Amino acid sequence: MQATLIYGAGDVRVENVPDPVLREPTDALVRVLRSCICGSDLWPYKSRPATEEGERIGHEFLGVVEDLGAEVSGLRRGDVVLAPFVWSDNTCDFCREGLQTSCRHGGLWAADGVDGGQGEAVRVPQAQGTLVKLPVGEDSELLPSLLTLSDVFCTGHHCAVTAGVDQGVSVTVIGDGAVGLSAVLAARRLGAERIILLGRHGQRTELGRHFGATDIVAERGEEAIEHVRELTGGDGTRTVLECVGTRQAIETAFAVARDGGTISRVGVPQYEETPMGFAEFFRNLTLTGGVAPARAYIEELLPEVLDGTLDPGRMFDCTISLDQVPDGYRAMNDRAALKVLIQP
Amino acid sequence: MQATLIYGAGDVRVENVPDPVLREPTDALVRVLRSCICGSDLWPYKSRPATEEGERIGHEFLGVVEDLGAEVSGLRRGDVVLAPFVWSDNTCDFCREGLQTSCRHGGLWAADGVDGGQGEAVRVPQAQGTLVKLPVGEDSELLPSLLTLSDVFCTGHHCAVTAGVDQGVSVTVIGDGAVGLSAVLAARRLGAERIILLGRHGQRTELGRHFGATDIVAERGEEAIEHVRELTGGDGTRTVLECVGTRQAIETAFAVARDGGTISRVGVPQYEETPMGFAEFFRNLTLTGGVAPARAYIEELLPEVLDGTLDPGRMFDCTISLDQVPDGYRAMNDRAALKVLIQP
Repeated sequence: MQATLIYGAGDVRVENVPDPVLREPTDALVRVLRSCICGSDLWPYKSRPATEEGERIGHEFLGVVEDLGAEVSGLRRGDVVLAPFVWSDNTCDFCREGLQTSCRHGGLWAADGVDGGQGEAVRVPQAQGTLVKLPVGEDSELLPSLLTLSDVFCTGHHCAVTAGVDQGVSVTVIGDGAVGLSAVLAARRLGAERIILLGRHGQRTELGRHFGATDIVAERGEEAIEHVRELTGGDGTRTVLECVGTRQAIETAFAVARDGGTISRVGVPQYEETPMGFAEFFRNLTLTGGVAPARAYIEELLPEVLDGTLDPGRMFDCTISLDQVPDGYRAMNDRAALKVLIQP
Repeated sequence: MQATLIYGAGDVRVENVPDPVLREPTDALVRVLRSCICGSDLWPYKSRPATEEGERIGHEFLGVVEDLGAEVSGLRRGDVVLAPFVWSDNTCDFCREGLQTSCRHGGLWAADGVDGGQGEAVRVPQAQGTLVKLPVGEDSELLPSLLTLSDVFCTGHHCAVTAGVDQGVSVTVIGDGAVGLSAVLAARRLGAERIILLGRHGQRTELGRHFGATDIVAERGEEAIEHVRELTGGDGTRTVLECVGTRQAIETAFAVARDGGTISRVGVPQYEETPMGFAEFFRNLTLTGGVAPARAYIEELLPEVLDGTLDPGRMFDCTISLDQVPDGYRAMNDRAALKVLIQP
C-alpha cells in the first residue's frame, strides 16, 4: 500500500510500504477513508533532522473495518469507524478516568511498528477500545466534521474543558490555527459569553467569528496583550486557551489571564519551562491542559456533529489525494491552507 | 511603641517606632495580642541586602480593637479580632469571588506605610473588610490555633482546596514546615484517604502523623521520588501539595504526581520558571495554587477551631516576648523551632 513517510524537515514522501496485517488478536485492519494533516505534524516538518530512513507520520483518520482479530468484539467488517489520535484499551484505570492518553496498554500512531494515519490502511492495536463506530456510510458528507473528532476538535474541546469554560465565562483564545478555531467552537458550545480570538489571518478569524468569537485581536506580543486588556477593563479574561505551543504564545497567555484565572494549553509545547514565579503565584494563576484524550470526548460530541449543530469540518479548506500529501504539508506550513483533508 | 524591623539578612531588630494613629475613616487600631513568625519571613531573613533603614516585618496577628474610623461598622472597641495576612475591602469583585489577595483596594502589611504584625499595635486599613471578630476573650487558650487562621493554616487549606483534595483522594505533601503540616491537616479534613508527607524532622513528621499523614518519606530528591512511587504502585498521587517554594521542591512535586494530577504550590516560589514542557504536557499535569486568600476561608474554618476539632495551634513550639523576636528568627531559621508565637 501507499503511506506517508517523513525523512527530515521539509521532506515528506508517499511511498510503497508493506500492507498491514493482523498481529495481535486485539488488532483490526482499517482502510482509510479520510485522513488529514495536523498542526503538530508541522513541528517535525519544520525541524526534523534528515535521516536515511523515513518514519511514518499521521495520526488522524477514519475508515472502514476490513478485518478483525479474534478478541475484538462490538465491531464488524464494513463498519465505518473513527480512530482517536492515541490508541488505548479504554478499560484500564486511566481510560476509565477519561485519560486515554495515559492508557496502560496504549500508544501513538506512526511509532513502534504501528502504522501512521496518512496512508491507505492502518493496523489498529487495541481496536475494541480505540475505534468508535460511526453511524454513517462511506460517502457521508459528514466525514470531514467527523474526522475532526479524531484530534483537532477534541483538542480544542479539551482546552476549553480543562480551563473550566462554562456559562458566562470570558475566554481568550490564542491562535487562529485549526486548534484555536476548534477551541472557539468548543468554548461557545460550553456557554462562554465573550470569546476574544487572537489571530491575524483574515479568512481564519472570519471562520472564528462563525464559530463564536466575539472579538478579534490581530496584534501580537505586547500589543495584543494591551488590546485584550483594553477589551476587558484592564483585567484580562478568566480563562485563556493557548492553542499554539510557542514560548511567545504561553507568555501572552499568562499576561492576558485575569487574577485567579486559568490558562489551558493544548499546543504541543516548543519550550521546556513556563513562567510560574512570584508574579504568577501572587496572581493565583493556574496552568492546565495537555495532550487531549480525544477518546474520552467522542461519544459526547458525536451527536451534535451528526445533527449538524457543530460543523468543525468547515476548517478543511483544501482536499488532496494521498500522492499530493507533500503539497499539503507545504500549503499548511506556508499557511496557505488552514487544514488539509486527505482522501486516499 | 515597639515593633520589629529587618535591616538585612540575619539582622532583625525590635525598636521604638511611632504609635499608629487612624489616618483614614476606614482604619482601625488594633493592639496586638499574639503575632508570629512566618516561614516566608525567613526568605528576607536569609537573603535581604543590608540597608541603613530597616523595614517593618510581620503579617500574622490577632488583637483587640482600640479605636475605629468613622466608616467602620460591625466592630467595637474591645473586640478581639483576627487579621488575615493581606488586608482587603472584602466588597470588590475579586473579594466577592474569594480572591481577597487581589483586592482592588487592598495591600500587604509592613509595606507602603502600613504597620507590620510583629509589633505592639497595628493600624489596619480597610478594617471592616479585613478584620474578623473572634468570639473569645483576650486570655482564651484558643488564641494560638485562631492565629493560624491569619495565614499558615489557611495557606495549607488553600493548597489542598486548589489541588482538588476531596474524599478518597491520594495526596503527597512536600515540606514538614508549618505550611506543610497545615496542608496535611487540611487534606485530612477534606477527606483525603492517603497522605504521604515528605519531611525528615522527627518531631515535625510526628505532628504530621497526628494531623493525618499516613506515610512519612524522609528521603529527598530522587530517593524521595522513588519512595513515593513505591508507595503508590509506581504512579504517584493525584494531588501534590508543594509547601516549600524551592526549585527542588517543585521538581519533586511534578515527579510524584500521577498522570492527570494536580500540583498546588503555596510556598513562596524562589524560582521564576517551572518545568512545564512536553513531558508534563503529555501527562496532563496541572499546576495551581498561589498566595492564599486567607480572608476567604476564615469563617468556614473558624467553628472547627473554636470547638477543638482542628488544633493547628499545636504547631507553635516556642513562645517569646516581643524583645526576643531576633532569637525567634534565629530559632526558626536553624529549624530549632517549627513556628514561633510572639506575645508582645
